[in-house]
Amino acid sequence: MIKVGIVGGTGYTGIELLRLLARHPQFAVTEITSRGEAGLRVDALFSSLRGAVDLVFTAPDPARLAACQLVFFAAPNGTAMGMARELLAQGVKIIDLAADFRLKDPEEWTRWYGIPHACPELLSEAVYGLPEWNRADIRAARLIANPGCYPTATLLGFLPLMRAGLVDADSLVADTKSGVSGAGRAAEVRSLFAEASDSLKAYGVGGHRHLPEIQGILRQAAGTELSLTFVPHLVPMVRGIHATLYATLRTPEVDLQGLYEDYYAQEPFVDVLPAGACPETRSVRGSNLCRLAVHRPQGGRRVVVLSVIDNLVKGAAGQAVQNANLLFGLPEGLGLDGIPLSP
Amino acid sequence: MIKVGIVGGTGYTGIELLRLLARHPQFAVTEITSRGEAGLRVDALFSSLRGAVDLVFTAPDPARLAACQLVFFAAPNGTAMGMARELLAQGVKIIDLAADFRLKDPEEWTRWYGIPHACPELLSEAVYGLPEWNRADIRAARLIANPGCYPTATLLGFLPLMRAGLVDADSLVADTKSGVSGAGRAAEVRSLFAEASDSLKAYGVGGHRHLPEIQGILRQAAGTELSLTFVPHLVPMVRGIHATLYATLRTPEVDLQGLYEDYYAQEPFVDVLPAGACPETRSVRGSNLCRLAVHRPQGGRRVVVLSVIDNLVKGAAGQAVQNANLLFGLPEGLGLDGIPLSP
Amino acid sequence: MIKVGIVGGTGYTGIELLRLLARHPQFAVTEITSRGEAGLRVDALFSSLRGAVDLVFTAPDPARLAACQLVFFAAPNGTAMGMARELLAQGVKIIDLAADFRLKDPEEWTRWYGIPHACPELLSEAVYGLPEWNRADIRAARLIANPGCYPTATLLGFLPLMRAGLVDADSLVADTKSGVSGAGRAAEVRSLFAEASDSLKAYGVGGHRHLPEIQGILRQAAGTELSLTFVPHLVPMVRGIHATLYATLRTPEVDLQGLYEDYYAQEPFVDVLPAGACPETRSVRGSNLCRLAVHRPQGGRRVVVLSVIDNLVKGAAGQAVQNANLLFGLPEGLGLDGIPLSP
Amino acid sequence: MIKVGIVGGTGYTGIELLRLLARHPQFAVTEITSRGEAGLRVDALFSSLRGAVDLVFTAPDPARLAACQLVFFAAPNGTAMGMARELLAQGVKIIDLAADFRLKDPEEWTRWYGIPHACPELLSEAVYGLPEWNRADIRAARLIANPGCYPTATLLGFLPLMRAGLVDADSLVADTKSGVSGAGRAAEVRSLFAEASDSLKAYGVGGHRHLPEIQGILRQAAGTELSLTFVPHLVPMVRGIHATLYATLRTPEVDLQGLYEDYYAQEPFVDVLPAGACPETRSVRGSNLCRLAVHRPQGGRRVVVLSVIDNLVKGAAGQAVQNANLLFGLPEGLGLDGIPLSP
Repeated sequence: MIKVGIVGGTGYTGIELLRLLARHPQFAVTEITSRGEAGLRVDALFSSLRGAVDLVFTAPDPARLAACQLVFFAAPNGTAMGMARELLAQGVKIIDLAADFRLKDPEEWTRWYGIPHACPELLSEAVYGLPEWNRADIRAARLIANPGCYPTATLLGFLPLMRAGLVDADSLVADTKSGVSGAGRAAEVRSLFAEASDSLKAYGVGGHRHLPEIQGILRQAAGTELSLTFVPHLVPMVRGIHATLYATLRTPEVDLQGLYEDYYAQEPFVDVLPAGACPETRSVRGSNLCRLAVHRPQGGRRVVVLSVIDNLVKGAAGQAVQNANLLFGLPEGLGLDGIPLSP
Repeated sequence: MIKVGIVGGTGYTGIELLRLLARHPQFAVTEITSRGEAGLRVDALFSSLRGAVDLVFTAPDPARLAACQLVFFAAPNGTAMGMARELLAQGVKIIDLAADFRLKDPEEWTRWYGIPHACPELLSEAVYGLPEWNRADIRAARLIANPGCYPTATLLGFLPLMRAGLVDADSLVADTKSGVSGAGRAAEVRSLFAEASDSLKAYGVGGHRHLPEIQGILRQAAGTELSLTFVPHLVPMVRGIHATLYATLRTPEVDLQGLYEDYYAQEPFVDVLPAGACPETRSVRGSNLCRLAVHRPQGGRRVVVLSVIDNLVKGAAGQAVQNANLLFGLPEGLGLDGIPLSP
Repeated sequence: MIKVGIVGGTGYTGIELLRLLARHPQFAVTEITSRGEAGLRVDALFSSLRGAVDLVFTAPDPARLAACQLVFFAAPNGTAMGMARELLAQGVKIIDLAADFRLKDPEEWTRWYGIPHACPELLSEAVYGLPEWNRADIRAARLIANPGCYPTATLLGFLPLMRAGLVDADSLVADTKSGVSGAGRAAEVRSLFAEASDSLKAYGVGGHRHLPEIQGILRQAAGTELSLTFVPHLVPMVRGIHATLYATLRTPEVDLQGLYEDYYAQEPFVDVLPAGACPETRSVRGSNLCRLAVHRPQGGRRVVVLSVIDNLVKGAAGQAVQNANLLFGLPEGLGLDGIPLSP
Repeated sequence: MIKVGIVGGTGYTGIELLRLLARHPQFAVTEITSRGEAGLRVDALFSSLRGAVDLVFTAPDPARLAACQLVFFAAPNGTAMGMARELLAQGVKIIDLAADFRLKDPEEWTRWYGIPHACPELLSEAVYGLPEWNRADIRAARLIANPGCYPTATLLGFLPLMRAGLVDADSLVADTKSGVSGAGRAAEVRSLFAEASDSLKAYGVGGHRHLPEIQGILRQAAGTELSLTFVPHLVPMVRGIHATLYATLRTPEVDLQGLYEDYYAQEPFVDVLPAGACPETRSVRGSNLCRLAVHRPQGGRRVVVLSVIDNLVKGAAGQAVQNANLLFGLPEGLGLDGIPLSP
């Protein structure tokens, strides 16, 4: 078994990593840290894990983490960059589920995240962990920037169009909707049941941190400048992201359904629905799948792509495990064959 | 008191009309029909109305309805057009909350609704009941086509831009989200709690019946051809519509906040939020209000308008009462001053 | 207009008081306090009140509050008792929506609330503000202890049985279910959407603070010792309390339906449903009503009473306004005729 | 692989059986029937199963079903009894997830289910499929009556008390709460999102079909007559049952925590929580677990047991797979080690 550690295990990505890793045949979690809950049994905090996880939270200790072959950072932004150098130096691989290594330019990072970057020299080495985008690089990496949830859903939806160069560069709109678990397990008024339930609202319209991350990859994929309008919304559901993507075709002559089916033909975790279908977020709940549909209303020039993922799985912990499988040369889908829970 | 009848009172627009009219100082519901529930007390079906509504459902009877001064049709599409001629001939005013009189062209109507129109000669007379669009016509009308819920939210959001001629005609996108009550009280699998809860999906991407209704008014407002991409989504909440509207500015020099504030300065039921705000659907729950915000992400060429209404009030029964007030020369807001219920 | 103040206006009982008082024909809120939000417009915090409430939060100032004829305390436990003496001395009437004056015995109060009582001499004067229990005392009072939400639903359900002396004193069980707004607007992990949604749990089984409050009144009503088993549950809904009450009849010969209908025949806010019916919480949403049903499964000795209220209205702010009407000799239902919002 | 068939696969127990069996190492579903959907791919109806289930619904055909070694009936009451004789005669084992074989007395069955029983001679042979109650009988059976969801949660909670003879026979109350999926996938108004959401109500207070099923087993366990008051409630959540059970101790001297821990010490799917804890339904979501807690408020004579299951797993499909494992001599937990999905 490969020894893995989790730094910051008290949030929703932490509990989801534990759920997936507890049944993984090759990874064994030997260390899970939390400053606030050190000494507490994990299943005392997360009763759903009783009988499945036999671990106690410890205070973060680099020496103990260095005994792992892989460390997942499921902690707030700014945590991984504080320990990455030291762990990498000791041969530990790292997957950061937060944002520390998602952008290449440290100044842009600081502009969006508000603090200086602690190890800018690692930014060029870090590999963006979207296997459908750069699987080969991930296999060879030692430091993975696990993508954000909105970026995963949005990029998987837009990539075939970008690669094919079919759409106007300034026509891109991503209207995205997320369940409330995307806001994390922090105690904030806006995430209360009585605030978020039976209501919907947009937020971050002026600029959301996932925008530069998405735009960066889209530009690489398209090979041109482009601008994206990105509007996230908060939806009264626990899990799930639905990205509704709009773009304008340069030319009307194109088989979009064929394009998408071909592009993802070999991908184990991307499912292109039949023409005319609309994916629902619950159809991927608890699984590492992304389901996509591509539409062209009234046969016009505008393309509409619908993309759904579970924000905690393909949008976070599941994708991290997929990346971990790649890092260690394991079958990519190992431990990720859970069927979505529906209803 | 002005005598009013309701045809088809067993759906959600019916119960909402009753809630509003039961406290209205000038209208008295004297007749409420339902083929299926004739003989049943209204409050036996809708226990929330116990003590407030003392009526019994009757089978629809033109003679009894003709004793009313105003009849609301809260029935399925195709019902009002079967009785409109006869009632109008007897001097009864009509507000149809369904779609029978929303389009001007009977052939277009048939294309979208699948049946021939029963009284095409009334289509030109019927007035589209969006007071913020054509209040004067409503005052003078005897037959009102009450707007759909999506059209109300979308039109109120787009009208200032259209009137000002500020945006590209082919850049319009309406990404709209509706609570499940918008699907009505019909027993359908897709509307079950266990189907619609904790999930989100798009539907009708290929073409929704509200599209021609919206497009028709937008064209009038803009005075030009234009095309709209309209994608509705089903959200796990009971009430509420959130329209997220996108358009591309022709010129960067424009004060959008001022434009919207001026346009709606005199409107009692449209509230333009301060710059930077995002309305939430619950902020209008149970009220006849539409709250709007206008954004321009990163100061670019794309405008994003956020528009929320309660689909059963401003999107149906409340707007119908507003229209009724106008029809009878009453203060426009009479009986509509309820404050939104939040949380 | 009677001038009223609200101390602690940033919670859910505060916003609900504002909603009700904004349309009240005799009360005018002239002062609303919040230490944390002083200087902020109320409608900047609660967007649902835009256009209806034109107030700014101020820091609590006894001198300004003394200019009111009535002060509602919608603040945490322990707040009202710190200001009550001074305000009463200046002729201000007080309605405390928290627990400071709900128990008669200061030692028992301290046992449940963990701090010494600041003005024990006022406990005997304070009147428990359940109008259906002691309307006459309320009319004559100057200090009202507004009942808790669970106590209101439970007491209204049990009182007819207690008064009639029909059931075994040690057979009482109150299995109660509350929406999440009952936990207030405080940022706590357990109240997060992602924690409370799509789940149900009991809590406080060992002893909940509402137990002594309920037991005290039940004992007075029964005129005997008795013990109650009280188990509250957290339900994934925003508003609503459903109390399911169990007791064992001493004698099988009794017309329970008649007993309840007679007991509440003159009560404007208690609705006894027809035999066999089951009230749903949404049938009272947003209203000051309590709906009750009484059952006797299989004609046996066990009585089952079902009682529903909106925890924020009849369980808090609505009952407070009802008490305020009584305090000032106004019609008891003034400003409380809103019809429940359903669906 | 053991060939299994599913009769009536279009409901929620059907889809859940498919989810569990698709990853089961010893069972292979070779036949799934639906009169209404014959010819349709299963994953066209249930998109969550795309990529995991490669089956087409067929019209029910006894000859094809007879080729299976085991048939699950996930169909309405009255279906299994029409085919049981024929299948058993051909050596096929049967697990009925509906109610046809849950009661022993055909007259009692008819009284509750309203139709004559089609094969009363099989009632005595049928084994009630609650492994924690009669595992040995299940192993030897060929016809299993899979328990109802409420009975599973209630019986697992009450059995230790009944076996120990500790409580008054007429003191039993089961206040039970169920998610809406318990009402099935039938299109009924009461199960609509807009009806069931944000509300809670009791139902079936006069007599629910699960009452005789529960009472029958409790009497066997206690070895005496007893009567139970059983009140189910509908909760706005998709999955989950929470049974809150009340009984009065005969004697105060008893270690309830020890009793429960000992009783279930060897049970793989029953988890007794530490003293003082309260289980939440989501802690078992998607899993075959029952979590229990036992309380004695204020140290009095009344016991309160809290019992939670996922109604579609331990309350239906999961328990059916557990029974199937026993029927075929497989490890009891095979294919049932999924960890609950939380949040």
